[in-house]
Amino acid sequence: MFKPLMKRLIPNVHVSAHCDLPCGVYDPAQARIEAESVKAICDKYQANEDPEFRARALMIKEQRSNLVKEHLWVLWTDYFKPPHFEAYPQLHTLVNEATKLAGAAGTKGQADPDVANELLAKIDEIAKIFWETKK
Amino acid sequence: MFKPLMKRLIPNVHVSAHCDLPCGVYDPAQARIEAESVKAICDKYQANEDPEFRARALMIKEQRSNLVKEHLWVLWTDYFKPPHFEAYPQLHTLVNEATKLAGAAGTKGQADPDVANELLAKIDEIAKIFWETKK
Amino acid sequence: MFKPLMKRLIPNVHVSAHCDLPCGVYDPAQARIEAESVKAICDKYQANEDPEFRARALMIKEQRSNLVKEHLWVLWTDYFKPPHFEAYPQLHTLVNEATKLAGAAGTKGQADPDVANELLAKIDEIAKIFWETKK
Amino acid sequence: MFKPLMKRLIPNVHVSAHCDLPCGVYDPAQARIEAESVKAICDKYQANEDPEFRARALMIKEQRSNLVKEHLWVLWTDYFKPPHFEAYPQLHTLVNEATKLAGAAGTKGQADPDVANELLAKIDEIAKIFWETKK
Amino acid sequence: MFKPLMKRLIPNVHVSAHCDLPCGVYDPAQARIEAESVKAICDKYQANEDPEFRARALMIKEQRSNLVKEHLWVLWTDYFKPPHFEAYPQLHTLVNEATKLAGAAGTKGQADPDVANELLAKIDEIAKIFWETKK
Amino acid sequence: MFKPLMKRLIPNVHVSAHCDLPCGVYDPAQARIEAESVKAICDKYQANEDPEFRARALMIKEQRSNLVKEHLWVLWTDYFKPPHFEAYPQLHTLVNEATKLAGAAGTKGQADPDVANELLAKIDEIAKIFWETKK
Repeated sequence: MFKPLMKRLIPNVHVSAHCDLPCGVYDPAQARIEAESVKAICDKYQANEDPEFRARALMIKEQRSNLVKEHLWVLWTDYFKPPHFEAYPQLHTLVNEATKLAGAAGTKGQADPDVANELLAKIDEIAKIFWETKK
Repeated sequence: MFKPLMKRLIPNVHVSAHCDLPCGVYDPAQARIEAESVKAICDKYQANEDPEFRARALMIKEQRSNLVKEHLWVLWTDYFKPPHFEAYPQLHTLVNEATKLAGAAGTKGQADPDVANELLAKIDEIAKIFWETKK
Repeated sequence: MFKPLMKRLIPNVHVSAHCDLPCGVYDPAQARIEAESVKAICDKYQANEDPEFRARALMIKEQRSNLVKEHLWVLWTDYFKPPHFEAYPQLHTLVNEATKLAGAAGTKGQADPDVANELLAKIDEIAKIFWETKK
Repeated sequence: MFKPLMKRLIPNVHVSAHCDLPCGVYDPAQARIEAESVKAICDKYQANEDPEFRARALMIKEQRSNLVKEHLWVLWTDYFKPPHFEAYPQLHTLVNEATKLAGAAGTKGQADPDVANELLAKIDEIAKIFWETKK
Repeated sequence: MFKPLMKRLIPNVHVSAHCDLPCGVYDPAQARIEAESVKAICDKYQANEDPEFRARALMIKEQRSNLVKEHLWVLWTDYFKPPHFEAYPQLHTLVNEATKLAGAAGTKGQADPDVANELLAKIDEIAKIFWETKK
Repeated sequence: MFKPLMKRLIPNVHVSAHCDLPCGVYDPAQARIEAESVKAICDKYQANEDPEFRARALMIKEQRSNLVKEHLWVLWTDYFKPPHFEAYPQLHTLVNEATKLAGAAGTKGQADPDVANELLAKIDEIAKIFWETKK
């Protein structure tokens, strides 16, 4: 619910990503899209007991979870600067927890849609801060 | 101009991507974000004559252009189905031209912001069709 | 049967591949070699019920199927030009179907040697057109 | 000077790395080895004005710098746990600064051996904490 | 001259590649195709002094040369077995020299078409042995 | 037992890795760290019958085993030179056997800690030669 609302309130003028030129284009949507994919995989995994399907689901979930980590690490290192960390003292912990939630203790090690939802919620918290800093 | 408007008219409820499970999550925003990055790199390239900076810009532009191709290929093969190609007879040519625009004859072979803009416009045409098919 | 015959009729003078320089070197053999690998994996999968072997077979089949898609996409975008698509109006659909056959609805989602054979047949159709355009 | 000394004082019994199983094997040596490579590339870059050599040096330095970032991110997310961040309140900032030093504002954007040395010193600070937590 | 002749004498029934299942599909054509690409890039590099073109040529040549190494390493480790090394005592040295020719002292470090030709000749020597062992 | 001892006898002044510039930085520790990871994964695999855990263990073991091969191939091609192969006539066979032990017939095809130990022992033999050549 929160994300579409936020999107509507904060006009999405800056379609953005990243690269280490830096191009200056960043967007937490990249992490969120991969996490949505992880969530959908968890749902499909729970609904399908075919062992071949499940094997594929686990391997693709592993890759997508890793992409979530990559996109969040890029925001943490390349986009956020010291003044952001001062203004948002919880930001280090937030990103650390979000990346852990996409790792072995989170959506890599489990196929639980609730864990994927926790990950999505963390990403939305980071996105909220991100868009505030872009204002 | 066109993109933000389109975004506003077509509510972005489906945050979406892809994976070959398939997770069912697709979003042309992935191609667009990388193309925005390509565009920003072209602009910075033209504004900076430092040879080290330019060498890095060219190599990163190469990678980002390739990601544009990858994301568009995924839409063409994995998301679009025969009924879509029937409903939109120009779709094959459109995706083919867009991927060519991200290749050697386009944003890989040149650092011209105008070429990057052409690529962005093509992606927006594909995105428009994509969102119509999601309705 | 068909491939060796075709190879004999159309002298394989142009050993060819690709890169986006472009180097001008393309060869549908790259896609075919990976698809042969996919076919062999399907055969071995059906003949071996050891769960560890099968897990490995599924993950490697996923990667090889993806390489088939990559090589075909490169031909479609980087080698084939508008005059080719005019001369062979079925070419868009052919490549689209071939890449779908290497995806979730094809050799990624199944370990059925017959599906791998269908994929090989499609690649041979593309190769036939390719070698005609090289004459 | 500092590193060999530290190595001698803290017996390197735990040969260690990482993977997200997790295998439990971590080692800051992985980041350091890549940073040593970055440093060597910077030195060779300054000593050789051949444009082909320099182009290759820049592209390889880009990749190696990225590996430094990857290895440090893995330590930050996968190895370090909340009690570590409590015991070492500077740890978040330290890893953030080290990864920035391997990015566009650091060894990616420059071929300056001094910047590579700063990066190495930061990695050694992280390694020192790492080995303390392993005791 | 040698390759097409060899191809004609040794019927190319085994379209082949590799994967570590193992699928049993190997083919030195994979290394050769990438080396042909390297050769073509060297030729185009020498014929074009545009710095942007040359920067791209160097980075793509680096990647293609690396693929040559990968394909040859796979043959050396995964296809060739102890009896092959006994029957062809020069095989270790041959593969070692070929991979060195695709590295820093060869087609990575230089854009000289003659070096690329040396690499192609070495690959043909390996291919000759390979096809003899397949008989 | 052997490795730490060797490390202590041969001062580890040259922290080293590789890249094809070449940077001149090589270190068999890179292969060993990945092999330690493979060993730890085998142990955890044997101790945990949860099918999801085992699926993940197999896919990560596949990747880590491949990294072992990559690091050893780099040493064989990029670090070792003809005089080394003359001084150590067993070196070709040793590296060939070690890479095979990290492949389908070794730690890729099995989750047996004993096979991982054999791989580690082979890497230590290579490392011993490596450090002798650095003296």
